[in-house]
Amino acid sequence: MKHKSNETSICPVARSLDVIGEWWSLLIVRDAMLGVKRFSDFQRRLGMAKNILSARLKRLAEAGVLEIVPASDGSAYQEYELTEKGKALQPTLLALRQWGEQFMFSPGDAHSTLVDKRSRKPLAKLEVRSIDG
Amino acid sequence: MKHKSNETSICPVARSLDVIGEWWSLLIVRDAMLGVKRFSDFQRRLGMAKNILSARLKRLAEAGVLEIVPASDGSAYQEYELTEKGKALQPTLLALRQWGEQFMFSPGDAHSTLVDKRSRKPLAKLEVRSIDG
Repeated sequence: MKHKSNETSICPVARSLDVIGEWWSLLIVRDAMLGVKRFSDFQRRLGMAKNILSARLKRLAEAGVLEIVPASDGSAYQEYELTEKGKALQPTLLALRQWGEQFMFSPGDAHSTLVDKRSRKPLAKLEVRSIDG
Repeated sequence: MKHKSNETSICPVARSLDVIGEWWSLLIVRDAMLGVKRFSDFQRRLGMAKNILSARLKRLAEAGVLEIVPASDGSAYQEYELTEKGKALQPTLLALRQWGEQFMFSPGDAHSTLVDKRSRKPLAKLEVRSIDG
């Protein structure tokens, strides 16, 4: 959908949404956080059209959320990696995940969970709280 | 943009984005949190086409994020109020705001801030942390 750009808005929420508020973009960032790196893997997991995926990856790279790096296995593939700016979206995704767990599932309805990489146990619930006040 | 619906996905992030990931919807929720209640006020602040605003408000009401109530001043207007489910998006918006403040503004570039309603002082920085471990 075409819309007024918010890239010069004084509101940090609006400027952020200009880059990552679009539906697919946050799912790409979610998958990148889960370790997905290659175009074909994003495409298979997200089931989205290649031209749209390509445009979204390009936009996220231009915005400094992802960076394009040579494949880690020495092959000719490109890989997409989260930058520091991209990794810093984790609290946003965690907050969105918890909202989804609480309001978008019926009681007993199975949902995916985040697990600790080493212990394989579900991650503890998170809260947003004030640091200095 | 037309896309595959994620309303039956097992991932809470994907299901959440199905309702509120679309660019305008989160800005509507942001404005509702700031006290905006009427169609004309959303329209003026967001500068969006009336038919799109109307569709987004309808979708948010159907999803239980907003509810439509009679005007508080007894006039014939409808007002849109956040439900508990809508208010529970605050941590997501706060996380997004902080990401925007950190990465979407140049040093010294003015941005809007959240202030305490009574003291008018900027709200403290927030962090996402584990509750039970």
